[in-house]
Amino acid sequence: MNKFRVKCELDYETFAPLVFLLNVRAQDNESQKVLEESFSIMPQMPHTLLTCAITQNRFDRITAELPGTYHIRYEAVVESALEKIPVADLPPTTHEDFGLEQLPFLYPSRYCQSDRIGRLAFNLFGHLETPVQKVQGIIAWISENVAYTRGSTTANTSAMDTLVDHAGVCRDFAHLGIALCRALNIPARYFTGYAFELEPPDFHACFETWIGGRWMLWDATHLSSPDSVVRIGMGQDAADVSVCTSFGSLKVKRQKVVCEYLSETREKMSAEDLRRMVVCHEVRREAPPAPKPA
Amino acid sequence: MNKFRVKCELDYETFAPLVFLLNVRAQDNESQKVLEESFSIMPQMPHTLLTCAITQNRFDRITAELPGTYHIRYEAVVESALEKIPVADLPPTTHEDFGLEQLPFLYPSRYCQSDRIGRLAFNLFGHLETPVQKVQGIIAWISENVAYTRGSTTANTSAMDTLVDHAGVCRDFAHLGIALCRALNIPARYFTGYAFELEPPDFHACFETWIGGRWMLWDATHLSSPDSVVRIGMGQDAADVSVCTSFGSLKVKRQKVVCEYLSETREKMSAEDLRRMVVCHEVRREAPPAPKPA
Amino acid sequence: MNKFRVKCELDYETFAPLVFLLNVRAQDNESQKVLEESFSIMPQMPHTLLTCAITQNRFDRITAELPGTYHIRYEAVVESALEKIPVADLPPTTHEDFGLEQLPFLYPSRYCQSDRIGRLAFNLFGHLETPVQKVQGIIAWISENVAYTRGSTTANTSAMDTLVDHAGVCRDFAHLGIALCRALNIPARYFTGYAFELEPPDFHACFETWIGGRWMLWDATHLSSPDSVVRIGMGQDAADVSVCTSFGSLKVKRQKVVCEYLSETREKMSAEDLRRMVVCHEVRREAPPAPKPA
Amino acid sequence: MNKFRVKCELDYETFAPLVFLLNVRAQDNESQKVLEESFSIMPQMPHTLLTCAITQNRFDRITAELPGTYHIRYEAVVESALEKIPVADLPPTTHEDFGLEQLPFLYPSRYCQSDRIGRLAFNLFGHLETPVQKVQGIIAWISENVAYTRGSTTANTSAMDTLVDHAGVCRDFAHLGIALCRALNIPARYFTGYAFELEPPDFHACFETWIGGRWMLWDATHLSSPDSVVRIGMGQDAADVSVCTSFGSLKVKRQKVVCEYLSETREKMSAEDLRRMVVCHEVRREAPPAPKPA
Repeated sequence: MNKFRVKCELDYETFAPLVFLLNVRAQDNESQKVLEESFSIMPQMPHTLLTCAITQNRFDRITAELPGTYHIRYEAVVESALEKIPVADLPPTTHEDFGLEQLPFLYPSRYCQSDRIGRLAFNLFGHLETPVQKVQGIIAWISENVAYTRGSTTANTSAMDTLVDHAGVCRDFAHLGIALCRALNIPARYFTGYAFELEPPDFHACFETWIGGRWMLWDATHLSSPDSVVRIGMGQDAADVSVCTSFGSLKVKRQKVVCEYLSETREKMSAEDLRRMVVCHEVRREAPPAPKPA
Repeated sequence: MNKFRVKCELDYETFAPLVFLLNVRAQDNESQKVLEESFSIMPQMPHTLLTCAITQNRFDRITAELPGTYHIRYEAVVESALEKIPVADLPPTTHEDFGLEQLPFLYPSRYCQSDRIGRLAFNLFGHLETPVQKVQGIIAWISENVAYTRGSTTANTSAMDTLVDHAGVCRDFAHLGIALCRALNIPARYFTGYAFELEPPDFHACFETWIGGRWMLWDATHLSSPDSVVRIGMGQDAADVSVCTSFGSLKVKRQKVVCEYLSETREKMSAEDLRRMVVCHEVRREAPPAPKPA
Repeated sequence: MNKFRVKCELDYETFAPLVFLLNVRAQDNESQKVLEESFSIMPQMPHTLLTCAITQNRFDRITAELPGTYHIRYEAVVESALEKIPVADLPPTTHEDFGLEQLPFLYPSRYCQSDRIGRLAFNLFGHLETPVQKVQGIIAWISENVAYTRGSTTANTSAMDTLVDHAGVCRDFAHLGIALCRALNIPARYFTGYAFELEPPDFHACFETWIGGRWMLWDATHLSSPDSVVRIGMGQDAADVSVCTSFGSLKVKRQKVVCEYLSETREKMSAEDLRRMVVCHEVRREAPPAPKPA
Repeated sequence: MNKFRVKCELDYETFAPLVFLLNVRAQDNESQKVLEESFSIMPQMPHTLLTCAITQNRFDRITAELPGTYHIRYEAVVESALEKIPVADLPPTTHEDFGLEQLPFLYPSRYCQSDRIGRLAFNLFGHLETPVQKVQGIIAWISENVAYTRGSTTANTSAMDTLVDHAGVCRDFAHLGIALCRALNIPARYFTGYAFELEPPDFHACFETWIGGRWMLWDATHLSSPDSVVRIGMGQDAADVSVCTSFGSLKVKRQKVVCEYLSETREKMSAEDLRRMVVCHEVRREAPPAPKPA
């Protein structure tokens, strides 16, 4: 059990009345408990908390009735359950070891055009035997080839661009990892969260793969440790988990993100640990789909 | 109530054992009842019927244990409930009139890069007042500008390509319609089905928009009538509703699709009807999300 | 005859010895005479002036033997000959009215993918009769639809992007104008120069079309007047006329551009003038190619 | 000296009067002599032979005054001078060892977006020492990674697509080779020609690099031998050397290409020869540009 205090401060400016959705709250479920939480918006405006039944992403829907600057403050104490599993202990798995819940995470999406890169993925990683080895190979390849370059990409940048440009930020690293996994028939999804010791502090993006009946977390940037992040959202890619979706023009004026470790001792995973073990944030094994015979 | 007989015959060749998912069955729910149905695969192979809890798409998961040619035959009698609503009777609606269920259909997806075309959509359709007028404007623009050209596009073609190339097939028309709607904050989703009187007969693609608490069906190609289609699948775009998803190499050798009208009389919707009325395939108004106050 | 004083100040930083080519000098030929000119680089380094026989672009090839910051200063007095021709006086012309010299300007290039947009160009401008009317139609369309937005594009942005995004800067406006012209079989080329009264002062990009045996200048941004620019370079698109081509890493630290009008009186072209007249910077009609019978 | 007989038969259908340019004749210059030549078009139409002063590409400009089918027959006997140089004998060379004539072949072009792939090229080939080793490394990489797949690409496919898709035909192999070379500051240009023993017979595309004061020929597909091709055209990429450029709608009905070896004995270059030697089709070393001191 890891305990974190997470915070964000967001100042937005609006020029006309509008509605916007924020996705900054920590997920609150069996794998990750929100122990305390506060959310405020100044000036006060009508707002509603919505939780998606499918993704468990939590949205604050805000009606900004007046133009002006809105100050949003969110703070939570979160306890995260984890499963660290030695790779050697994972059950053997096959491509087809997933149900309809995982199917969307095999399909190409806005920023992860896995349909284009089947040959490329096979050429680079086809020789690796198990799904975990393939993912580890993908992450090693991204680390060696893609330069983490602040400001090198935009909101339009996709995995195909990153394959060509060999530069990007955490979002792009995650998109490329996801696209390559899907191209190898490994379900993969986008993960956003608060990350401890991320430098400079910001919202972070990682990705998860479905292997052996578990979602495992990976950070291709190596800027965070997969056992030290708090999940905000998950989705097919960044399109699904924007911090802010606004129905009208909204301008970010300031953004500050904090993630502190609260438990007394923390054993940081070493590079060796990361090679030997995988980290799962959904500790309970999902029941396999119950097919009815046709 | 419209009644249809739909059929498809698919012959696939495999070169090694593999698993594949077919998505050819008519949806079976309150809006569209499957009265009779048969599905066969020759030679017989283990297969399982799976229904997605979210989309209600129905998949046949087949394990082809031997290389060779597989003959798949599907046939069903389907009764489709429809609501034809005069545009004039639609309640006034606003951008924000949707819940989390509709949110994914506002976000960009693999083939519908709505995030890129906000300015373009506003330039072309911003002057139109209501959401229905905007959709009608989009469809008129697509009809005037995009040439229906068999063979002009591939499985990689997206709405952005079609905006540039001004050519495509039903899939591309639907993707462009969806992308333009989403860019105007109108939730839009992809619809595949059997279409009566489609020439030449094939699987067909249309799109739906969420306006006034209803999903309305539109065919930007005008090749089918929105009251004469049987739904197979829905999703964010074509990535979600492939006829066949295979985990290994599978080759289509033959494909035949049939859609017959069974009811005694059919009043075809005229161009005037299509201007005056919208067609909804989900007749029951979905309950609005029950937000809990934050 | 218009007379201008043009200047630029460029400071570049290098981290290792390298060679770079600058393209900042005014062209010096029958249409545009350089009356005075000075070029300096501090600290002094070996450098050579090269003039391309085909484009007449003038390059300073500099060998930066030491890492450090280089201060480049260029200043010139330039006299520009122009031909303003009433549109009504242009001879009738056809698509095929050009020789091999113009052929490269009909072909697609890095940033002007005219091969993709034949249908689009025909849909938008096919109804316009003469080549000049088509170009005027293209410029009017760009002005209405594309927002001049500083910082909205990068060095990778092409005409296809601008068609989708509806935003850009002078370079993007020129690329889109060129691509649309070529798609309509009107030879078009990229023009870079110093522009009088450009606000804020910077290098500027326009485009030229070959119609009726003349290259005519157009500015789709309307930020400069086609009779008040001094040509630096021409090419198929921006790829051919970078201010600086370096063989190694070079960083711009400062850039200042000046263009002053020296002649006593200047009659600015009105919007009405621009509708009635075209401006040609190559006053001498190029001899038609002398074909030998096959 | 190698001697070849080359032929092509092209049948085109037109639906309205139009002008088109053919580029099928063998170049005729110091490096490659056309000894005999015949060209016919049936029905006879006005046509003119044009030779580009820059590229030496030879165009037949044809005015098809009537709709209908045109039968074009070209046949030539060509003697090609070659220089085979042992790699070991090449003079040492540097990036900057080229003049303005080579500059366009360093810049990105329609199908060779070298500006995008600097990091990728450096990651893959930056460790190789000499320009020839870099080119050999590029060709080996393309051979290993890109599948030669008839029908996998279209006229819109570019080097960036091929980098992602890992499939293509000779045109795509050449574009990718060119883009990678330019990204490493090696001038590279597109080469089209007749190729002996190409199977099935067709027009062929290769590329040339400027190293050590020579243009060397490379075939990344290994389908032809660089000493057994007859040059038709050269340019920045395929955009510059279409077989046919038409100003109006023209449909290919039939195309047949032949290339026979006429000399008595032919020593085919072995894989070992290709590693040890480079083949230059421009035997005369171009005079270096004569810079005038600035």
